[in-house]
Amino acid sequence: MTRKEATAEILVKKKAAKLSWEDIATAVGAHPIWVTSVLLGQNSMAPEMAAKTQKKLGLSDEATALLTECPMKGALDKDVVADPLIYRFHEITQVYGTSIKEIIHEKFGDGIMSAIDFTMDIARQADPHGDRVVITMNGKFLPYKKW
Amino acid sequence: MTRKEATAEILVKKKAAKLSWEDIATAVGAHPIWVTSVLLGQNSMAPEMAAKTQKKLGLSDEATALLTECPMKGALDKDVVADPLIYRFHEITQVYGTSIKEIIHEKFGDGIMSAIDFTMDIARQADPHGDRVVITMNGKFLPYKKW
Amino acid sequence: MTRKEATAEILVKKKAAKLSWEDIATAVGAHPIWVTSVLLGQNSMAPEMAAKTQKKLGLSDEATALLTECPMKGALDKDVVADPLIYRFHEITQVYGTSIKEIIHEKFGDGIMSAIDFTMDIARQADPHGDRVVITMNGKFLPYKKW
Amino acid sequence: MTRKEATAEILVKKKAAKLSWEDIATAVGAHPIWVTSVLLGQNSMAPEMAAKTQKKLGLSDEATALLTECPMKGALDKDVVADPLIYRFHEITQVYGTSIKEIIHEKFGDGIMSAIDFTMDIARQADPHGDRVVITMNGKFLPYKKW
Amino acid sequence: MTRKEATAEILVKKKAAKLSWEDIATAVGAHPIWVTSVLLGQNSMAPEMAAKTQKKLGLSDEATALLTECPMKGALDKDVVADPLIYRFHEITQVYGTSIKEIIHEKFGDGIMSAIDFTMDIARQADPHGDRVVITMNGKFLPYKKW
Amino acid sequence: MTRKEATAEILVKKKAAKLSWEDIATAVGAHPIWVTSVLLGQNSMAPEMAAKTQKKLGLSDEATALLTECPMKGALDKDVVADPLIYRFHEITQVYGTSIKEIIHEKFGDGIMSAIDFTMDIARQADPHGDRVVITMNGKFLPYKKW
Amino acid sequence: MTRKEATAEILVKKKAAKLSWEDIATAVGAHPIWVTSVLLGQNSMAPEMAAKTQKKLGLSDEATALLTECPMKGALDKDVVADPLIYRFHEITQVYGTSIKEIIHEKFGDGIMSAIDFTMDIARQADPHGDRVVITMNGKFLPYKKW
Amino acid sequence: MTRKEATAEILVKKKAAKLSWEDIATAVGAHPIWVTSVLLGQNSMAPEMAAKTQKKLGLSDEATALLTECPMKGALDKDVVADPLIYRFHEITQVYGTSIKEIIHEKFGDGIMSAIDFTMDIARQADPHGDRVVITMNGKFLPYKKW
Amino acid sequence: MTRKEATAEILVKKKAAKLSWEDIATAVGAHPIWVTSVLLGQNSMAPEMAAKTQKKLGLSDEATALLTECPMKGALDKDVVADPLIYRFHEITQVYGTSIKEIIHEKFGDGIMSAIDFTMDIARQADPHGDRVVITMNGKFLPYKKW
Amino acid sequence: MTRKEATAEILVKKKAAKLSWEDIATAVGAHPIWVTSVLLGQNSMAPEMAAKTQKKLGLSDEATALLTECPMKGALDKDVVADPLIYRFHEITQVYGTSIKEIIHEKFGDGIMSAIDFTMDIARQADPHGDRVVITMNGKFLPYKKW
Repeated sequence: MTRKEATAEILVKKKAAKLSWEDIATAVGAHPIWVTSVLLGQNSMAPEMAAKTQKKLGLSDEATALLTECPMKGALDKDVVADPLIYRFHEITQVYGTSIKEIIHEKFGDGIMSAIDFTMDIARQADPHGDRVVITMNGKFLPYKKW
Repeated sequence: MTRKEATAEILVKKKAAKLSWEDIATAVGAHPIWVTSVLLGQNSMAPEMAAKTQKKLGLSDEATALLTECPMKGALDKDVVADPLIYRFHEITQVYGTSIKEIIHEKFGDGIMSAIDFTMDIARQADPHGDRVVITMNGKFLPYKKW
Repeated sequence: MTRKEATAEILVKKKAAKLSWEDIATAVGAHPIWVTSVLLGQNSMAPEMAAKTQKKLGLSDEATALLTECPMKGALDKDVVADPLIYRFHEITQVYGTSIKEIIHEKFGDGIMSAIDFTMDIARQADPHGDRVVITMNGKFLPYKKW
Repeated sequence: MTRKEATAEILVKKKAAKLSWEDIATAVGAHPIWVTSVLLGQNSMAPEMAAKTQKKLGLSDEATALLTECPMKGALDKDVVADPLIYRFHEITQVYGTSIKEIIHEKFGDGIMSAIDFTMDIARQADPHGDRVVITMNGKFLPYKKW
Repeated sequence: MTRKEATAEILVKKKAAKLSWEDIATAVGAHPIWVTSVLLGQNSMAPEMAAKTQKKLGLSDEATALLTECPMKGALDKDVVADPLIYRFHEITQVYGTSIKEIIHEKFGDGIMSAIDFTMDIARQADPHGDRVVITMNGKFLPYKKW
Repeated sequence: MTRKEATAEILVKKKAAKLSWEDIATAVGAHPIWVTSVLLGQNSMAPEMAAKTQKKLGLSDEATALLTECPMKGALDKDVVADPLIYRFHEITQVYGTSIKEIIHEKFGDGIMSAIDFTMDIARQADPHGDRVVITMNGKFLPYKKW
Repeated sequence: MTRKEATAEILVKKKAAKLSWEDIATAVGAHPIWVTSVLLGQNSMAPEMAAKTQKKLGLSDEATALLTECPMKGALDKDVVADPLIYRFHEITQVYGTSIKEIIHEKFGDGIMSAIDFTMDIARQADPHGDRVVITMNGKFLPYKKW
Repeated sequence: MTRKEATAEILVKKKAAKLSWEDIATAVGAHPIWVTSVLLGQNSMAPEMAAKTQKKLGLSDEATALLTECPMKGALDKDVVADPLIYRFHEITQVYGTSIKEIIHEKFGDGIMSAIDFTMDIARQADPHGDRVVITMNGKFLPYKKW
Repeated sequence: MTRKEATAEILVKKKAAKLSWEDIATAVGAHPIWVTSVLLGQNSMAPEMAAKTQKKLGLSDEATALLTECPMKGALDKDVVADPLIYRFHEITQVYGTSIKEIIHEKFGDGIMSAIDFTMDIARQADPHGDRVVITMNGKFLPYKKW
Repeated sequence: MTRKEATAEILVKKKAAKLSWEDIATAVGAHPIWVTSVLLGQNSMAPEMAAKTQKKLGLSDEATALLTECPMKGALDKDVVADPLIYRFHEITQVYGTSIKEIIHEKFGDGIMSAIDFTMDIARQADPHGDRVVITMNGKFLPYKKW
């Protein structure tokens, strides 16, 4: 069984059990985005968490074991995908990327925001003109090593 | 004068005047990221704001006028750039993009987070293990039209 | 069953039943282009509409359920496809794209035509020199947020 | 003088004269989108129209002459550009392209909508929820030759 | 059955029956290149012609029906293919394309040679220094619409 | 002076002298397409022909000398260009390329049509439904060497 | 059976029979590189040679028949492959390609070395500092046609 | 002065002095292909050789000095170029690359032909059916290190 | 069985036997990175080593035999992959590649570090601020041949 | 002055002063690779170090100031460059990248080697069979955050 086949099994069982990602995350005891990223084959979890996932979803042992392995990361098969929801993040990088670079350098100096020591949250903000998606990214600043 | 040449003039005058983007944004009376995005040629501002920018930076009339025009947006000349700070946002899209899609659809239904009716903030979060970059994106949810 | 397999089932059953997209759209009670876009895996419909589609086409429960899920959008596997009918829309964007940009900015200011809050119609216009295809696109203008 | 330099001259003079594309089109006596496409180097006009353009804008003889020549068409230097306004047309082709293909074949048979024997209009439609951009494309149907 | 599978069936049956494309075209009553293009999945034919093809080749009903449908055109999976015979046409476009453009514009004005209202013939020309391939392309000139 | 600059000089002088490619070809004593291909930097001519070209156009000695040198061929800076006239030849290769391959192999065996030992003609064919472009390509068949 | 499947059958049977390409070429009575190119699906051979190949390898009739057909040539699925042995030939083209062009033009005039009327040999040259690979390419010079 | 500008100076002076690459190579005392590769900016030569080149061509001191520096190698700005003479080497790699790989592995084992410890020669072979280009590549076999 | 299928078998058996790459390398008697590269289909090993691998992992004869064959090398299906661990090596090449080039040329002259006569080691270095990955690459310097 | 122009000035002055990168690094008091990376526009240094660089090289104030600014990193204008020395690092990533991934995960768990908190050294190792390049990369292991 490949990691992709494990993801397929997860999607089938999640649908059959009418579970949301939120439900699974609660059962696992971790953040929904991170849990979803593991279940979609982009991260790995500890055996105890995999066991809880297995119990909640009724996963096979093989798929459960794969959740603890380090996957080949990168979920999208093209550099830029056409799906409008995902594409907008590419657009934000294109339109605001150079501004983000300037402001981070101004606030922190030469370095980057880590995408590894990194967490993310998505919330729904009520708004009379239409509710809003609020995404918070939180990554450690890594200063460029000078040697 | 092209918009690129206006940006070059801005960068030279900003350095000569030892101003931060924060300083300029305060003078303009708007958010530093948005002001920076205008000054880097990715957005347009009202004439009053352009006038304040001109005064703060000592910009030429030609460059000032260009700030009020709708630019050809997209600051990066390649789909994926090598600069590590900017690249990490591409990596986040690759690793977490499918999870973001799942969670937004779960919370909001079929649609997207707008990158047009959109704001962004960057803050420095003190942390004993190394300070952290906190980026907040706030975009209107746009449900897919069914007709 | 993946969304692609659902589309394949739909095409087989549509042909067997000798139904046009127009016929199916009438049964569903929505616009033919939008209904076609759902059936080709590019949009999602409400369960009631999926039920009507199922009834009209004799779809399996699995394919019917998939019609209510948010798909990974983007039907073409390349940025530019060779099919002449579809390619012509790429050509229109190449030849008239900058003019469209100028005219929309002139009429509306800085912003875009939404492709989400968006509808489309295709009509046949009789013409002695050869009938004409008339496509009407109707998208909400989204002004660029300034913050 | 290249066609690109002629376009640059036109943009400078249009701004100096505070003319809209609409103004110029009225002077030329043709549709604003088509006139804009000529002035942006994507189409060619008859000498009489070029003369009216010259008069309205105060163009050089060299730039005026270039307006009557057949240009190398295709205004965008990449297959897919990041500018959000223009990108949305690529997105529409990705999301609705296969549906458009199905519906045109259903209504007309095997063939295409011409992008040469083709006109286009852009209008502003007032709407209490936000005004809308209405784009009408009108192209001759060309049936595939069978021989 | 997909159109690709229909093509595979055709190739197998053509080989088994030791028929040339010429033979099939004669049976169908149309030009060999056009008939071949239909059989290779790039064009569609009328039911009567499909029936003649079926009879000549002993095709299945399913494959026969597919010959009457409008295919997704574009037989090559890459923009430029390595096969030397096909590549040479790309090379001709690269080396002579700008000359062809100049000469057509000189003879006809602004517009294009249609690839839809288009026929093609291939003949063998005897030559003592080695026989020659003579390809004749015949496409309607489409003048660019001015509106 | 580079070959590109020589081409630019030629285009300027041709326009100033109001000469057609046909006129120049007549003066040179060779076929208009081939002469145009040399003048656009895609082929080389003998010194006598270059001298005739110089006389007809009033070319500089430097540009004249360049016409006799073997250029780096390939006039288009991208594999597939957006210009509709030139693009149609790419489309023909995509839609009819596999049929051309089958028919040439059927008529000649394994090998290719040379694009080097190759000539081409373009003619205008009068037609009441709209005149037609007739392109004749004539290339030596080169059988694949077996050794 | 596709040509790819025939190649797979050949590789399996060659390994089972512990035959080298040299052995097969000797049985066929032709050069090892050319025979290998046919067996890897890049060239076609006469029925007598295919029969000898069949006998030596114990090939199926179907695979044997495919060896006599003109394949879609081009063995590598990418323009530039990572395999170090094959990549070095790309590197030679990058580093020495412009020199090769200059020297061939100097020795022969405008034209090319044919890759069709072409043979190739690979030999092992003993050398105390490490044996050397000696590749000899022999292609007919094709002068560019002037017409 | 960049290496590209040095190459431009060399080409101008070579033409003015009516020297062939062969002439220059003789003056330098090395092989014409290698000397040409240095002069086209793809290799570096010892100061004595650069001095001889300078004397023969009347080069500037600056260009002469650049000949002794290690250049950024890779003369072609695209992976695959359209120039027919150079393209044929790409085609040979596509059509015969997998055969070359098989034969070298059969004769030498796992490893590659070096493109660094490498020489090349081009000769003209008289032939009544048209003279032939004979290219000999000679590279050290490098066995893959096993550790 | 293809080499890819052999790799899949190896991964399954390694997991079932709960062996590390280190364990297998010890059994084989070679360096873990090199052994891993063979087992992942990027290098070939001698029959004795393949036999030891077979014994340790319980491999099939077919997979074992494949380990002794020269594979088509290049494990990544794209030039740049999104997996963050592997991507960082691309980033190092982008950020430090030109510096590495300068320093190697300064220390060794014109030439390269071989990637064939090459070994590599990875070690864990304890560090109170977080342990470090230490990678040592050791490749023979190959001076550019001058001839 | 852009960062690229500053690099050009540095290269000219380094050559005029006959300084090695080693010499400059000694004057600056930092590692030659890191200093070179700053001088080639890929990193930034403190004002004191920039002052030492200025003194050693006789740099202009403008170029000196640029050395302290955070550059847009990524020195290579293509994902994969043809220069053989730099290309070999791409090849190592292709051939050994998956092995490196396996071994790092085995030694450290899920995470990456940082390319930011990272140092590198290049040494010359004497060897009777030809000296060797020894590259040591040292990067902090960053475990993937689980949240």
